[in-house]
Amino acid sequence: MAINKNYKMKFFRKIKQITHLMKQVDFKELGEISEKIDLPKIMKSVGELDDNQLKGLMKMLTEKAKKGQHQLPPIDGDFYDYDLKLNQEQRAIQMKVRSFMETEIEPIANHYWNKAEFPMDIIPKMAELNICGVAYEGYGCPNLPFIMEGIIAEELARVDVSISTFFGVHSGLAMGSIYLCGSEEQKQEWLPKMQKMELIGAFGLTEPNVGSGVAGGMETTCKKVGNEWILNGQKKWIGNATFADVIIIWARDVDDNQAKGFLMRKGNPGYKAEKIENKMALRTVQNALITITDCKIPESDRLQKANSFKDTAKVLRMTRAGVAWQALGCARGAYESALKYTKKREQFGKPIAKFQLIQNHLVEMLANLTAMKAMVYRLSELQDQGLLTDEHASLAKVFCSMRTRDVVSRAREVMGGNGILLEYDVARFVADAEAIYSYEGTKEINTLIVGRAITGYSAFV
Amino acid sequence: MAINKNYKMKFFRKIKQITHLMKQVDFKELGEISEKIDLPKIMKSVGELDDNQLKGLMKMLTEKAKKGQHQLPPIDGDFYDYDLKLNQEQRAIQMKVRSFMETEIEPIANHYWNKAEFPMDIIPKMAELNICGVAYEGYGCPNLPFIMEGIIAEELARVDVSISTFFGVHSGLAMGSIYLCGSEEQKQEWLPKMQKMELIGAFGLTEPNVGSGVAGGMETTCKKVGNEWILNGQKKWIGNATFADVIIIWARDVDDNQAKGFLMRKGNPGYKAEKIENKMALRTVQNALITITDCKIPESDRLQKANSFKDTAKVLRMTRAGVAWQALGCARGAYESALKYTKKREQFGKPIAKFQLIQNHLVEMLANLTAMKAMVYRLSELQDQGLLTDEHASLAKVFCSMRTRDVVSRAREVMGGNGILLEYDVARFVADAEAIYSYEGTKEINTLIVGRAITGYSAFV
Amino acid sequence: MAINKNYKMKFFRKIKQITHLMKQVDFKELGEISEKIDLPKIMKSVGELDDNQLKGLMKMLTEKAKKGQHQLPPIDGDFYDYDLKLNQEQRAIQMKVRSFMETEIEPIANHYWNKAEFPMDIIPKMAELNICGVAYEGYGCPNLPFIMEGIIAEELARVDVSISTFFGVHSGLAMGSIYLCGSEEQKQEWLPKMQKMELIGAFGLTEPNVGSGVAGGMETTCKKVGNEWILNGQKKWIGNATFADVIIIWARDVDDNQAKGFLMRKGNPGYKAEKIENKMALRTVQNALITITDCKIPESDRLQKANSFKDTAKVLRMTRAGVAWQALGCARGAYESALKYTKKREQFGKPIAKFQLIQNHLVEMLANLTAMKAMVYRLSELQDQGLLTDEHASLAKVFCSMRTRDVVSRAREVMGGNGILLEYDVARFVADAEAIYSYEGTKEINTLIVGRAITGYSAFV
Amino acid sequence: MAINKNYKMKFFRKIKQITHLMKQVDFKELGEISEKIDLPKIMKSVGELDDNQLKGLMKMLTEKAKKGQHQLPPIDGDFYDYDLKLNQEQRAIQMKVRSFMETEIEPIANHYWNKAEFPMDIIPKMAELNICGVAYEGYGCPNLPFIMEGIIAEELARVDVSISTFFGVHSGLAMGSIYLCGSEEQKQEWLPKMQKMELIGAFGLTEPNVGSGVAGGMETTCKKVGNEWILNGQKKWIGNATFADVIIIWARDVDDNQAKGFLMRKGNPGYKAEKIENKMALRTVQNALITITDCKIPESDRLQKANSFKDTAKVLRMTRAGVAWQALGCARGAYESALKYTKKREQFGKPIAKFQLIQNHLVEMLANLTAMKAMVYRLSELQDQGLLTDEHASLAKVFCSMRTRDVVSRAREVMGGNGILLEYDVARFVADAEAIYSYEGTKEINTLIVGRAITGYSAFV
Repeated sequence: MAINKNYKMKFFRKIKQITHLMKQVDFKELGEISEKIDLPKIMKSVGELDDNQLKGLMKMLTEKAKKGQHQLPPIDGDFYDYDLKLNQEQRAIQMKVRSFMETEIEPIANHYWNKAEFPMDIIPKMAELNICGVAYEGYGCPNLPFIMEGIIAEELARVDVSISTFFGVHSGLAMGSIYLCGSEEQKQEWLPKMQKMELIGAFGLTEPNVGSGVAGGMETTCKKVGNEWILNGQKKWIGNATFADVIIIWARDVDDNQAKGFLMRKGNPGYKAEKIENKMALRTVQNALITITDCKIPESDRLQKANSFKDTAKVLRMTRAGVAWQALGCARGAYESALKYTKKREQFGKPIAKFQLIQNHLVEMLANLTAMKAMVYRLSELQDQGLLTDEHASLAKVFCSMRTRDVVSRAREVMGGNGILLEYDVARFVADAEAIYSYEGTKEINTLIVGRAITGYSAFV
Repeated sequence: MAINKNYKMKFFRKIKQITHLMKQVDFKELGEISEKIDLPKIMKSVGELDDNQLKGLMKMLTEKAKKGQHQLPPIDGDFYDYDLKLNQEQRAIQMKVRSFMETEIEPIANHYWNKAEFPMDIIPKMAELNICGVAYEGYGCPNLPFIMEGIIAEELARVDVSISTFFGVHSGLAMGSIYLCGSEEQKQEWLPKMQKMELIGAFGLTEPNVGSGVAGGMETTCKKVGNEWILNGQKKWIGNATFADVIIIWARDVDDNQAKGFLMRKGNPGYKAEKIENKMALRTVQNALITITDCKIPESDRLQKANSFKDTAKVLRMTRAGVAWQALGCARGAYESALKYTKKREQFGKPIAKFQLIQNHLVEMLANLTAMKAMVYRLSELQDQGLLTDEHASLAKVFCSMRTRDVVSRAREVMGGNGILLEYDVARFVADAEAIYSYEGTKEINTLIVGRAITGYSAFV
Repeated sequence: MAINKNYKMKFFRKIKQITHLMKQVDFKELGEISEKIDLPKIMKSVGELDDNQLKGLMKMLTEKAKKGQHQLPPIDGDFYDYDLKLNQEQRAIQMKVRSFMETEIEPIANHYWNKAEFPMDIIPKMAELNICGVAYEGYGCPNLPFIMEGIIAEELARVDVSISTFFGVHSGLAMGSIYLCGSEEQKQEWLPKMQKMELIGAFGLTEPNVGSGVAGGMETTCKKVGNEWILNGQKKWIGNATFADVIIIWARDVDDNQAKGFLMRKGNPGYKAEKIENKMALRTVQNALITITDCKIPESDRLQKANSFKDTAKVLRMTRAGVAWQALGCARGAYESALKYTKKREQFGKPIAKFQLIQNHLVEMLANLTAMKAMVYRLSELQDQGLLTDEHASLAKVFCSMRTRDVVSRAREVMGGNGILLEYDVARFVADAEAIYSYEGTKEINTLIVGRAITGYSAFV
Repeated sequence: MAINKNYKMKFFRKIKQITHLMKQVDFKELGEISEKIDLPKIMKSVGELDDNQLKGLMKMLTEKAKKGQHQLPPIDGDFYDYDLKLNQEQRAIQMKVRSFMETEIEPIANHYWNKAEFPMDIIPKMAELNICGVAYEGYGCPNLPFIMEGIIAEELARVDVSISTFFGVHSGLAMGSIYLCGSEEQKQEWLPKMQKMELIGAFGLTEPNVGSGVAGGMETTCKKVGNEWILNGQKKWIGNATFADVIIIWARDVDDNQAKGFLMRKGNPGYKAEKIENKMALRTVQNALITITDCKIPESDRLQKANSFKDTAKVLRMTRAGVAWQALGCARGAYESALKYTKKREQFGKPIAKFQLIQNHLVEMLANLTAMKAMVYRLSELQDQGLLTDEHASLAKVFCSMRTRDVVSRAREVMGGNGILLEYDVARFVADAEAIYSYEGTKEINTLIVGRAITGYSAFV
């Protein structure tokens, strides 16, 4: 029997529509009312609706949903309603994170940034969000799609890029290294506690002479002597490293010239971490210059599945999408502050939001913001489908970090002089955007990664 | 009985994954082999796979699909694989249109553009594609999602923005006016023939003194006298109007001051269309300056459901997303030509694609291209869900037409002097991008539309 | 006796002030009234004025001068009054050229551009301006400072970049080659007639495979056989070459591998020039693809002082500043058209020049225009002082051609759709700016020339 | 007797050339050797040289001068040799200021910026430079051309924009107010001591609700009661105001509604200045929020010649050019640091200055830098000739502050992550550029000032 193609198409389209429709519905509420109504019957009825009826129903439900949002501030950087693509559970996590950031972090963000200190006491509260290792399976991790890792990065960065970076280093780079390159034993030892933020991780790859996007050329060395490894070298810019319980250190094995990874435990006598002072960006993040001198690490603390730089690259690929989402969050935070400001600030007797020149800035910001969101959303889709490549992530990094620079710059501009005061909640984003712009590979390095992919030619050297 | 939320989530996620998976599969091929295999059983098996197994299967199928694309040129502007989101039927339409454009239009596009003439004889061939009124229901129209209207606009513009404009005027604006504002009788008379391109339409809204994005202020008037209407005024920039069989004319009723629409039939003695000469862009499109002098139109040729500018606006809203897709197509065509060129052209003894400065241009183009694609894709999703607003469309118009200007400019730049010769297939896009930039509302007008939506203040005047 | 430094400073400052002052004065008028007044006495009195008195006098005279300009249109791209730096004679030449361009060229510029033909009959009228070889000494040339070469290029390009290019090829490149590299005999034969435009020149350096900014790698060869040279090869983009009386052809000597220059006379049987068709820019300029096949040229027609590429480079250095001035002229023409338009065109019941978004475009244009003027003025000063280097010229080329692109793009934008019609006198500049952007070295090549100068490292390959 | 025009032209040209020539010469050295040689005779001989001989001599002398600069670092932002336009005395002042900044300020600039404190002990050293009120006449001021005010602003900002701002407020705004609007008695009391920096001034115009570029609308009031004035209101952003000896306070007279200016003496009980904390830019500058409550000031401390906002505007016009010069200095400092860095920093085994992408950044910086210099140089020329208008200054402010943003952003970019550390001497400029961008009128306000001048229409409201 030949398959009726049209029927199948229609069937799948309907499934898609119902799926979409269901996402709008408040499942918790549904659960509550499900004892009163016959849900399966309703589902069946919905299945029998034609396309127009479906659209109508959906619109009705959406408008209901929108009305329900009345209590939200009308300042909203999600212009193309990507929130509607999240299901109920995902939306709940998003809202929980947003609420934490607005309640716990926003009031203290400028203070800590200005003093260049990290608010250690927020860690337990953050742990309660249960968002570490969100896309990993097992070891207490939620095992949600990567899209949620992105959403979380956006929400964190929307209020404080430093906190988002702290989190990305711990949950993405440090936990990710163990998740992808650790033995089962190592995973069991570290991941559950790190997931609960009882232990905090750091990730040591970048070096004083070797930028973060530059594969190869590592100057930190390791050498096996008996059942121990001896490490020597320096690492620079290592976030969280002044207080982390474990620092993943990458080093080049002098014997086989391959990259290897190590679980450097806090307090190892051969390890010294000096805080990098006088940063103009991400001042809350505690970056360290690490000096490793004849440092001994047992073989049992070597990441057992990290045998070459390819394994390091796996970690970076898994986390790089997050940086693009962070850029989005940074831009969104700045945009929303600026929009709020322009509605309140008056000149010549009216809110400056009424001036064409101001609206032009706001709309350029929003256009970039919306394009970024569309792009990173697709990026995470590709990741969730197992299709993500390095060059996909690099392109998003290039685009979003450039556009974010433009957005924060306009956000500051519409504030005039007030834009340089931290209290108006844009200045910090302006500064932090510079860090985003350069970390996990500068624009130049990421450009050449994509360039190689599309031309077939490497132009690095 | 309480509903098990987790189960439901998992169920919907799986449906989504299977749906996605099925889209990768060649259904025609499946149809053919379905007699040999037990498809339902396979489907069942697939349904029992766990997430990782599903991912693995999907990756395998995708790679198979990619291999199958080997015969396509490796020059491809779809870097984030949006093609994978189309189903089999949609993908087939896309390929059919692409093939038509590359075979029939590409060889003649520069010639007609240079001579500022329209290739009338391509109309019957184009009709065979069956793509007119693609998203309308009935009257011979395919009734596909709006996303396909976008895909088609992209494919047309990727080779020739003029052809895409000709098509957009006919299928979107002219047919759309009748579809949305015509009586059932009017629809029956016009749409089936227009769908087959036996009759060609035009759309007369813009005037010498009133730009296309400016609602209100129309100077063309209509007045009812007996069962006839008398029209007077001028329309400028009206595409297709030198040869169209029917021109939708919008006019202000001097009695109630409301906008009304008319089916102006070719040959009406009160109607004169003069071709606008000496354009630097979209030279293939035949724009006219229309002069209407005491022109009589029977009430039966008045669009029966167009009673105010709000009805005109409905037409514009439905078609405006298409302009953003056109911008994308224009940028993509220029990018692909440029990429091809840089791989062939040598300087200093190597392909210029090897130079960092050239790769930087290519990657900036690709980043913009990919962001545009992501944005318009979401735009059409919103449209298909009945959620599209004017400001959604305006934002995409602003973003895409700006980014396209940037892309075509870089495409020309990497070609050096050759970039100004039509034969290298970039110069035409550079010029045409200027037209896209301004039509259906300038950047300024669309900016103020979005600005009003986000600030709550109108800054037009 | 020690020199009194303060005195000297004061003396030179006063000289400078008087010099400046005198430039404001109408010398012709002065000449006429000089029989009635005692000029030397006045001069003496002026010399005795103190600084404040001098300033007052100057301001008075300047205001008088400004009043005298009342009949000029208030549309003026010279915002920082550089015209005041010209002396009376220079100012007269400037005005003569401007008048010629506005009277003779403006009315026909769009027509010829659109038809891609050159208006041969304007050559005799242009000859009357006596501006060929303006900075050369002898052979009938005016021997004025290089600043005047710049001013002339600006004035020509302000109305028609094609005419300016035609002129630059003839007067700068062709005459310049003979002036710098020809023997006295060759100069005597060609320069006086070329200065009077009785003979027209072209300059053949660029080749199909070798861009204009790329030194070395020439594929056209010459070989001496007896007292003749045999030339073979192709040249591309050669302006004026379809009708020129003499074409300077540069070729690589197969024996010593050095560049040599030849006076190719019209009608040489081994020489074929095919017009390059289908350009989107500088359509009035007749560029040719030249094919040279076993072409014989006597030793007497070899440029006697051109012995290596360094000599070719001398010609290019002398003329390159002119391209930057051309870019300025192009931008100025577009700006002035746009400003005029915005004062006339109304939307929402008022001139669009009243809108903030339009003023923003105008001011960005003017800022760029003024910066360009300031930069090229200094460039020519350096040239007049014998201090001009290749990298000075390259930097101006990079800056001005980039900024011009921005200016013409905004000029088109403020015109909305009308901006793509040639008749509004901006579209042509938009297209021509693309040619300026790439000729005499692309942005990339000129960037690398400057880059090498400031870093000490060559990054060409 | 008719005057021979040609002769006169030639004469003035020669004077100009000699003048120029003399500026190249080291006058001090000349003074020393003048006893050995017969200078007048040499001068006479020079006068008899023809143009070519003069050029040759000049080139020789210039090259000699360049050789003499060998000990200077090859990192130099003065690509078009504007230094050559300064005379010996001016050049000496420039070098003295540069030396002070590099020796005294550079070593401490980041430290004070980071701590947001002002280095009070540099004031006496700075006083020794004798650069306060450089363009004023009398009261101990040097009475040099305004061009020197610009040069000084550039040199200060090139090392530390905060110091340059401190100086601009004191010497330009505060002293300038007294110089232009004070009575002779007031000038005698304040200017000599301020010139020696024994007393420091501040300038209170901007208010919490009224931006610095906004004329009118002042909310601070004054009212005359007997021989005293009562002031009430707030001033924001007032630089130096936490420690200044005198603060010029502008207020609106409630009786005649005109702006009046007052000499607010330190310690006045009705005056309170609170330091503005948590700035991200110009952190070294001590800006204050000033609260004035029933503050009494005697009539003798009212600026006697300030009778309306026009008088305030005079002060602003005189100083505004300085902000554009400051922007230039800021950009230059960042460029020179970046250039130095790229020559030292290696990646992939070679200095990054060798990479095309890096050279592209450097050259774009240099192009902008050179254009800015050309523009502000002309601006100060206009000022010295008494031709400066508000719109001239506004245009330079707009252009330079925009371009500076671009330059510092690229400077940071070429440094990768290191660019966010203060110690690499770019991060501070990045932040400070934001303050420059907004003070003395935002880009928007200055744009509308120029826009009004060129269109004839005000678009402020």
